[in-house]
Amino acid sequence: MPNTTLEHPIDLDKVLEEIRQALEQHDFQKAVAILEEYRPADQAEIFTDLTDEEQRLLLTHLSPEDSADILEELDDEQALELARELPDDELVTIMDEMEPDEAADLLGDMRPERAKRLLEELEDPEEIRPLLLHPDETAGGLMTSEFLALRRRMTAGEAIEAIRQWQPEAETIYYLFVVDRYGRLVGVVNLRQLIVAKPEALIQDIMSDDVIFVTADTDQEEVARLMARYDLLALPVVDENKILLGVITFDDLVDVLEDEATEDLQRYGGAEPLERPYLDTSPLIITKKRIGWLLILFLTATLTGSVMKLFEHEIQTMVALTLFVPLLIGTGGNAGSQTTATIIRELATGNVEPRDALRVWWHEARVAILLGMGMAIPAFIRAITWVDNPMLALTVSVAIVVLVLWATGVGSLLPLVAAKFNIDPALVSGPLMSTMVDATGLMIYFSIAKVLLGL
Amino acid sequence: MPNTTLEHPIDLDKVLEEIRQALEQHDFQKAVAILEEYRPADQAEIFTDLTDEEQRLLLTHLSPEDSADILEELDDEQALELARELPDDELVTIMDEMEPDEAADLLGDMRPERAKRLLEELEDPEEIRPLLLHPDETAGGLMTSEFLALRRRMTAGEAIEAIRQWQPEAETIYYLFVVDRYGRLVGVVNLRQLIVAKPEALIQDIMSDDVIFVTADTDQEEVARLMARYDLLALPVVDENKILLGVITFDDLVDVLEDEATEDLQRYGGAEPLERPYLDTSPLIITKKRIGWLLILFLTATLTGSVMKLFEHEIQTMVALTLFVPLLIGTGGNAGSQTTATIIRELATGNVEPRDALRVWWHEARVAILLGMGMAIPAFIRAITWVDNPMLALTVSVAIVVLVLWATGVGSLLPLVAAKFNIDPALVSGPLMSTMVDATGLMIYFSIAKVLLGL
Repeated sequence: MPNTTLEHPIDLDKVLEEIRQALEQHDFQKAVAILEEYRPADQAEIFTDLTDEEQRLLLTHLSPEDSADILEELDDEQALELARELPDDELVTIMDEMEPDEAADLLGDMRPERAKRLLEELEDPEEIRPLLLHPDETAGGLMTSEFLALRRRMTAGEAIEAIRQWQPEAETIYYLFVVDRYGRLVGVVNLRQLIVAKPEALIQDIMSDDVIFVTADTDQEEVARLMARYDLLALPVVDENKILLGVITFDDLVDVLEDEATEDLQRYGGAEPLERPYLDTSPLIITKKRIGWLLILFLTATLTGSVMKLFEHEIQTMVALTLFVPLLIGTGGNAGSQTTATIIRELATGNVEPRDALRVWWHEARVAILLGMGMAIPAFIRAITWVDNPMLALTVSVAIVVLVLWATGVGSLLPLVAAKFNIDPALVSGPLMSTMVDATGLMIYFSIAKVLLGL
Repeated sequence: MPNTTLEHPIDLDKVLEEIRQALEQHDFQKAVAILEEYRPADQAEIFTDLTDEEQRLLLTHLSPEDSADILEELDDEQALELARELPDDELVTIMDEMEPDEAADLLGDMRPERAKRLLEELEDPEEIRPLLLHPDETAGGLMTSEFLALRRRMTAGEAIEAIRQWQPEAETIYYLFVVDRYGRLVGVVNLRQLIVAKPEALIQDIMSDDVIFVTADTDQEEVARLMARYDLLALPVVDENKILLGVITFDDLVDVLEDEATEDLQRYGGAEPLERPYLDTSPLIITKKRIGWLLILFLTATLTGSVMKLFEHEIQTMVALTLFVPLLIGTGGNAGSQTTATIIRELATGNVEPRDALRVWWHEARVAILLGMGMAIPAFIRAITWVDNPMLALTVSVAIVVLVLWATGVGSLLPLVAAKFNIDPALVSGPLMSTMVDATGLMIYFSIAKVLLGL
């Protein structure tokens, strides 16, 4: 039995070793048996660490059900690569065992000609065809068409019998949705309610008619927000006439939450999100995802140089001024970046909204005064021990207070403005923040120096 | 019926207005009726936007069940504040209606004397007492003690009857755990399997004995990772003898995933995570969470100044050198920050592990060469148009390639090293990265300048 209480639920090296040995001895049954001891998520991890050759050998001996499980658990790109290696007939047998939404995702990633050919050979193409119409990152792209809809006039007993007959593989049966004769969503009942109810009770008397639903074009982030807020195990997807199209299940919610957190952090780090696992992404693609922002930031940073050029005379007169440049722009950037990170997450979790801008700014202003005063003292001490010029030390101290105030203000308002205009607030990255504060911060510093030091 | 398909599921201002009107007219029934139209999560949001006075007025007219729902949905600190306002007897009535894990969380946050007093007055203190022993951020702190355990010799029909009798309020019944006579966890069966099985089938024949479980001291991050990886709706918590102590349900998983993403982004932004919503946290506390890192970064940044002081002679000879300082340290910091953000998330999702360090570094090195070359050309052009000194422009270009290589190397290895030593990789924040790269980056720049420009 796999040990599941450890940080790494499986001893990957050992399993790989065992499977490889079995494969080398052409004992395919044994190799398959070893793999089958593990859960689909673990099987997929084991599988991806095998070579292409080993994967092909194993696949031809695995049952279509197991192959389908593995394909479902693989990342999109990895699944696609594997599908590319398989002949049509083998792939069709496997895809017949996949969840419709997963099969549709795979088809959607393929060359259109092959997707079309495969679709026609599938057992139940009509289950999958409508799912192909929706972009991956929408409710329509997440939903499965494999669900059991109840009618209002059914009894609880009949509903339970229907579930028995259906023998569903999917976890979609914990919430059962009720439709009218036109297929329009009219209610929801959960499995617990069905069981607890008297067998002769009518569905319309047990069900709740206050159903939370989304339309197929709803963004996956909004889907996740609703499911998380109301603790939903399943969320129904309808068309513009409220006709039930599919159901999004909680495993999709978890995937979306993780994807969104990854995207946010990568954006915040100043890079476009990668579409597949890092180590499987080629350096060239990673470079493409990063260089755009790096260049934009570079161009913005030349502004900082321009500011220094503007104050070249003052710098010539007192070179010591430049000693504090990294310190000051660093502190401004850091203070702004702290603020931005906080506001981005508050926006993502819905605790703060664009209309709170004034409250947020006032909140930050008070924090900035406290932070600025806290930083001014060490800055003064550091400056006086470095250059032995009290007026320069005072300049640095005053500049740091003004800078922190400015940086937290920019840092709090930028993501709020982005959200206001429906731009992903995480695009206001730490690097973008820092770079914007750099030039303006230096302007503030040199201006204060000019006045206080009479340059 | 609340409109649930919008980004903001409820029109907060309108609801607040209506409730306030009702309260002003002393029509408490109406105020309660308006609130009760909404779901608990919405009720909690509405509730927090009322004044303390209004909250008190409403609470005395709400049913204990509704009050319990609201208390459960509130943030820990808000729930605590509200609890502080309520007299013991009222609070006990409400807490009797709360989920045991939520009630235990609330008691754990109170003054010990009051918690002890309240606990003794509760209907079922024994359900809550064991939950108080575990820290909030562990499996024991997340689990609920309200679960139904089955025995192996029961039939599916008896199990369903037991569920009917129990009439559980909780969502814990989708997975039912099976224990032996000593209360040790031996299997799991889900509600779907129970329903699909013949009524006379024995639990031991339907159940799976391969249960994923955790011990009470398991960190919540590990809990979330297991539940997300294996798509679990519920995770059993056992003691060292495998005796079943409680169950963690999927709504806790969602909360943990969101908390962890928030913590990661705040840490990455260079601040200690806040424990409660931003706008409810006083500026003083926010300052405390931020100033530590700001000071550490400030001290590190003085190193950058020291490096500049070290090369004071070179700078005096060619002041133009300083023009490129913000540009170069900016680019280094940005490139490192992009890398760090990516690696932190790959570590969090388990796609990369500390033992992949060498592969990651080699991956980054290739990216860095591409990025560096991509940046060197605009840097050269910018430099030559600025200072009309080809050798200085060359210096800047060469420095940028070396710097990006260095920054991505540091940016990728730091979080991996942190993870290796079980330190939260997110502590390697963008600001920390940038500050560390600043000083070393300048060293690289000035050294290259010394050689190429013969200073």
